[in-house]
Amino acid sequence: MPCSSINVLRELDAQQVRDIARGAAVLGTGGGGDPYLGTIAALRAMEEYGKPQVIEPDEVPDDGLVATPVLVGAPVAFLEKFPVGPELEAAYRALDTHFAGKLVALMSAEMGGANSVVPLILGARLGLPVVDADGMGRAYPEAQLVTMTLYGIDASPFAVADEHGNTVVLDTVSNVWTERLARPAAIEFGAIAASMGYPMTGAQLREAAVLGTLTWAEEIGAAIRVAREEKGDVIRELLRVTGGIELFRGKIVDVARRIERGWNLGEAVLDGIDEFAGSSMTVRFQNENLVAIRDDRLVASVPDLITLIDAETGEPITTERLRYGFRSVVLGIPCDDKWRTDAGVELGGPRHFGYEIEYVPLEELNSATGAAA
Amino acid sequence: MPCSSINVLRELDAQQVRDIARGAAVLGTGGGGDPYLGTIAALRAMEEYGKPQVIEPDEVPDDGLVATPVLVGAPVAFLEKFPVGPELEAAYRALDTHFAGKLVALMSAEMGGANSVVPLILGARLGLPVVDADGMGRAYPEAQLVTMTLYGIDASPFAVADEHGNTVVLDTVSNVWTERLARPAAIEFGAIAASMGYPMTGAQLREAAVLGTLTWAEEIGAAIRVAREEKGDVIRELLRVTGGIELFRGKIVDVARRIERGWNLGEAVLDGIDEFAGSSMTVRFQNENLVAIRDDRLVASVPDLITLIDAETGEPITTERLRYGFRSVVLGIPCDDKWRTDAGVELGGPRHFGYEIEYVPLEELNSATGAAA
Repeated sequence: MPCSSINVLRELDAQQVRDIARGAAVLGTGGGGDPYLGTIAALRAMEEYGKPQVIEPDEVPDDGLVATPVLVGAPVAFLEKFPVGPELEAAYRALDTHFAGKLVALMSAEMGGANSVVPLILGARLGLPVVDADGMGRAYPEAQLVTMTLYGIDASPFAVADEHGNTVVLDTVSNVWTERLARPAAIEFGAIAASMGYPMTGAQLREAAVLGTLTWAEEIGAAIRVAREEKGDVIRELLRVTGGIELFRGKIVDVARRIERGWNLGEAVLDGIDEFAGSSMTVRFQNENLVAIRDDRLVASVPDLITLIDAETGEPITTERLRYGFRSVVLGIPCDDKWRTDAGVELGGPRHFGYEIEYVPLEELNSATGAAA
Repeated sequence: MPCSSINVLRELDAQQVRDIARGAAVLGTGGGGDPYLGTIAALRAMEEYGKPQVIEPDEVPDDGLVATPVLVGAPVAFLEKFPVGPELEAAYRALDTHFAGKLVALMSAEMGGANSVVPLILGARLGLPVVDADGMGRAYPEAQLVTMTLYGIDASPFAVADEHGNTVVLDTVSNVWTERLARPAAIEFGAIAASMGYPMTGAQLREAAVLGTLTWAEEIGAAIRVAREEKGDVIRELLRVTGGIELFRGKIVDVARRIERGWNLGEAVLDGIDEFAGSSMTVRFQNENLVAIRDDRLVASVPDLITLIDAETGEPITTERLRYGFRSVVLGIPCDDKWRTDAGVELGGPRHFGYEIEYVPLEELNSATGAAA
């Protein structure tokens, strides 16, 4: 076993996996896949292969290789196809073969209801540990939008596989090229595909990834669960555990959506209720929520996290589940500090998505506005 | 040198390369790239690296590996970019590395003004011989449409590369999947890309390829050249050397064209002149000419070859060069017998391209119609 030299900290039980998927969907800012599907697939893998093992970033040997499995494509396609079976293992095998069997652990590419648990599913299946970290501390719609890119870590060699036995191995000169080539392959594979990339050593991971995010997702998911069980104030608990701000509370009155180049693009418009009555909010998304505009004023933008939460249940609402009539709280959560550097804002900020606006941290945008927080 | 054990039959001089490119453009049925660009690139490679060497199919060892370099994408993009430099060598290196340096020769994927000379360019550069054969005996717009597919030879591993240093290696379960995955990669690489695939042994090549087509292309090109030099009847010479039929003679009065998924799709309409006065012909194409309809009657279809020839100069006209006003002869040439089997017609016949018509050999369609032949 490649992980025999690693001291495994803990095994995840079913409740922890459920909590991680739900909490990661909060951090997934509308993208990263549906937590319900992620949970079902993870629980099924656990029944068949046993519990997934999680290790701390410090436990990965300096020169041990970690790679990130990720589902590439339009999350709306998850509803029909959740490619975490043989295709995911095939993507892993293609990459592991490339490195002559040197992969020792897995890591989530992003936090999101599905993508956060994808490594847990594969880890259970292969007996490989999953590192408590990810490449974003949130979710993003393009493969190069990970903090590893800020540290010069290549996404490639990057393997993409389907359920028929097709694999594509990309060797690219930049992470933008990995994204450009992985996406059309995923589209050919039926809008969504299993992939494996970002090979890096333990030393690189500790410098370049966002650490502790599986634990954080678990805490967030557990907070939602406990507050619901105890009939507490779910939103208040969410604000506490995420360090977030309530940007808006309202009813969804319009959702525009289109699929373009494998992305789920569009916007949701909300009419305010309670203290936000009379106000309106527009949230624009590309798989993930990108900007939140309240009464024509920007109140949050990427790289900060913008998540819609069902006001009744506290459940995060992914962009493909947005529907007219949902009563929702729009939650803003500060992003990881790696994203707030100049390079981080250039990589994952509003201009990358075509918005000609300066990024201003969420807390500053909402410090003097009297927003409920 | 990997080819040291092979007895090289002949080296090509500049005139032979020009003749091959021009003759292959006749066999390219409107596609396969522009002979002018192919010739320029080949002559430049010859100046730098020396003459390309051609060998007979019998000279490839039974277990020696041959692969086919090919430019994938929309031939109209050739006009801006002719990717036969470092990208073509990179695609070769990716495949040769996969086979631990075992490639001993190259073969054309198809006959066509550019793709027929691509192996000559790469062969000159690498000092590898080119086999006198190809995978179609014509040109076709999709990677799986080669006679090797009829013999169960895999297109993959199949490498696609660009000029920036990006490579994609496909490992697919069918040649249709190779086509599906190579095309979007080529589109990302700027509508056209260098690729390398169809690795096969000498024994496989002798069974599954169309043999002797470089020589045939050279004969056709030489016939055009000599007839023009001697002010002879170029069309008559072309009919003789190709075994073809003159399906029509007319003036192009309409060209409709669109680029779709990296293909050059459309149709040309001709008004008859001379013995075809009063008649009309429509030629539909997808990179290559697919069907020829004279006065609402089908007179030729794939897999048979349909090529428009400039009536004055005898030059073949590629589909991206079709223009209003050209006086053209529409030439029909019988395809190789491998395409006339049931499997061949299923793979490369009219139904593959969405035409609900039975394939009938060119000679039968035109035997009792009084067509000039």
